[in-house]
Amino acid sequence: MSGKRIEVREARRLAEAALVAAGASSESAAVTARALVAAEVDGQPGHGLSRVASYALQLRAGKVDGKAHPVVTATAPAALGIDARNGFAYPAIELAIARLVPMARASGIAAAGIRGSHHFGQAGRHVERLADEGLIAIACANSPRAMAFHGGRRPMLGTNPIAFAAPVAGRPPLVVDMALSAGARARIIAAKTSGQPIPPGWAVDAYGQPTTDAAAALDGALLPVGGAKGSALALMVEILVGALAGGAYGWEASSLFDGNGGPPRLGHLLIAISPEAFGHTGFAARMDALLAAVAGEAPARLPGDKRLEGRMRAATAGIEIPASLYAELCELSGTTAAA
Amino acid sequence: MSGKRIEVREARRLAEAALVAAGASSESAAVTARALVAAEVDGQPGHGLSRVASYALQLRAGKVDGKAHPVVTATAPAALGIDARNGFAYPAIELAIARLVPMARASGIAAAGIRGSHHFGQAGRHVERLADEGLIAIACANSPRAMAFHGGRRPMLGTNPIAFAAPVAGRPPLVVDMALSAGARARIIAAKTSGQPIPPGWAVDAYGQPTTDAAAALDGALLPVGGAKGSALALMVEILVGALAGGAYGWEASSLFDGNGGPPRLGHLLIAISPEAFGHTGFAARMDALLAAVAGEAPARLPGDKRLEGRMRAATAGIEIPASLYAELCELSGTTAAA
Repeated sequence: MSGKRIEVREARRLAEAALVAAGASSESAAVTARALVAAEVDGQPGHGLSRVASYALQLRAGKVDGKAHPVVTATAPAALGIDARNGFAYPAIELAIARLVPMARASGIAAAGIRGSHHFGQAGRHVERLADEGLIAIACANSPRAMAFHGGRRPMLGTNPIAFAAPVAGRPPLVVDMALSAGARARIIAAKTSGQPIPPGWAVDAYGQPTTDAAAALDGALLPVGGAKGSALALMVEILVGALAGGAYGWEASSLFDGNGGPPRLGHLLIAISPEAFGHTGFAARMDALLAAVAGEAPARLPGDKRLEGRMRAATAGIEIPASLYAELCELSGTTAAA
Repeated sequence: MSGKRIEVREARRLAEAALVAAGASSESAAVTARALVAAEVDGQPGHGLSRVASYALQLRAGKVDGKAHPVVTATAPAALGIDARNGFAYPAIELAIARLVPMARASGIAAAGIRGSHHFGQAGRHVERLADEGLIAIACANSPRAMAFHGGRRPMLGTNPIAFAAPVAGRPPLVVDMALSAGARARIIAAKTSGQPIPPGWAVDAYGQPTTDAAAALDGALLPVGGAKGSALALMVEILVGALAGGAYGWEASSLFDGNGGPPRLGHLLIAISPEAFGHTGFAARMDALLAAVAGEAPARLPGDKRLEGRMRAATAGIEIPASLYAELCELSGTTAAA
């Protein structure tokens, strides 16, 4: 696979232009392009520029409203309800973050529920931004059905990311970001392409039988991480975003990849907590002690730190994307490809 | 193993008398006995009456202050800091629940951080009680070191339970309650006794090597469920209760079973959310839809429902405990054992 190296700013411009060409407002396109490029930079290409083409397709199909403005539908001292109005998720998440920061500082804890939304993107980035403001943050979201319940056979649950971030003095926040599937669909697709088996425990086939055959897995369902435990956590996420925040359940949502069906109407939940909320003032020192404890357990390492290497690289060397993806972005944005 | 069937009220009386005999106040003993018996009734004997002897031992050793009154050390509109003052966890949890209910209703979301505490007990019961008040609840706690970090070899993390509950119209709340270890230590102990191997992925030996030998596992460390994912979730719990709420980390805490060392000073976090907080009024109907979806996926089933069978049985038939445990409770409580 040949690669093309481009600067971060150029990547943003291409993505933004592609979204505007497909019908997004410049405001929505800018916020969305920034989020996709940030995921690319952080080494999460599955939430990055590879999404531009399917986002454009969904804009053209009317499945995403690229001109939607998120609307606050409810507010309490520590809670915020936001309707994304079937636009991209990112403008609603921007609004949630901006409002949660002062709310959490004033109340100790605050939460935003988002409904009528779309692809949550890089979950870790959203919580990291709250941690950049000195807050502890937890977020979760659902996604269209991909995963069987523990003991079930059909795809029902989304892969339902859970993310967490905490500020650390003198360095970027500690970030946890995980999907609740045992393995990633992208790796199953790659295994199918290369003719390799997938690890046991990742998937069942269309008959609900455990399989290590990648093709059979893609016809069946992913499995939750840790069996009953991952299944229960994914169910918890469905309740938080599908019953509490008011989004669609994973089994009700349309695909985030094609132009078919109505809007996916997914839900998200963000929680922000002030580190001083519980009358304990030593938070920063306690985080230092935790980092020291993890350092003493090498080769164990802090989750989420791989992203920092990607960021450092991107700041000086830009990002490398497949040449075919670069060509796609040029075409979608009406840009003449650079050699 | 011969069993002894006793009424729930009798079980409470024995546990309470045993704790008072070991130095607990009648108030603390009553709350603690109620929690232990509730766990026994719900089919979680590891958090039940088997704990009475070690609780009594820790009271006598001065490791738990059975006369402590939990103290509110901080309060914000939606946050509550509680110091359990090295008493049992349950009086602090009682206080947290009583205060969280009106706070969550008024603010939309509210949280209580508890520090200077002890064994969290049956995590699912605490969130269920908040759900009985119509709230959605999330709770987590840490426990003394038992589990290696993913990639590490020594016991560092607690098994760190996460619990979740949501109210459902016309039936008891849906409850999720899990430890973050791949397997339960009690099952490894049972495997050692019976000479059986344990499943792969549950533990490493003292050299950090994967093992299926139960004895080697008990000399080594438990492993987190789902590898890196469970490890990251357990780290998140350590931060929430050890840095945010101000408790000890798992690797700092003394044992919950013996009389050695100072107080374990563990931490807990409880979060309560109003189902109407986000401007979406259909919560009850959405929960019904979720239950119907799970029912359609049988043999998959709702997490936590096994406890309801135990309750039904206990209400009419009492609980059955090992005869040796009954004798122990009688001795500790100064009761003459019934035939």
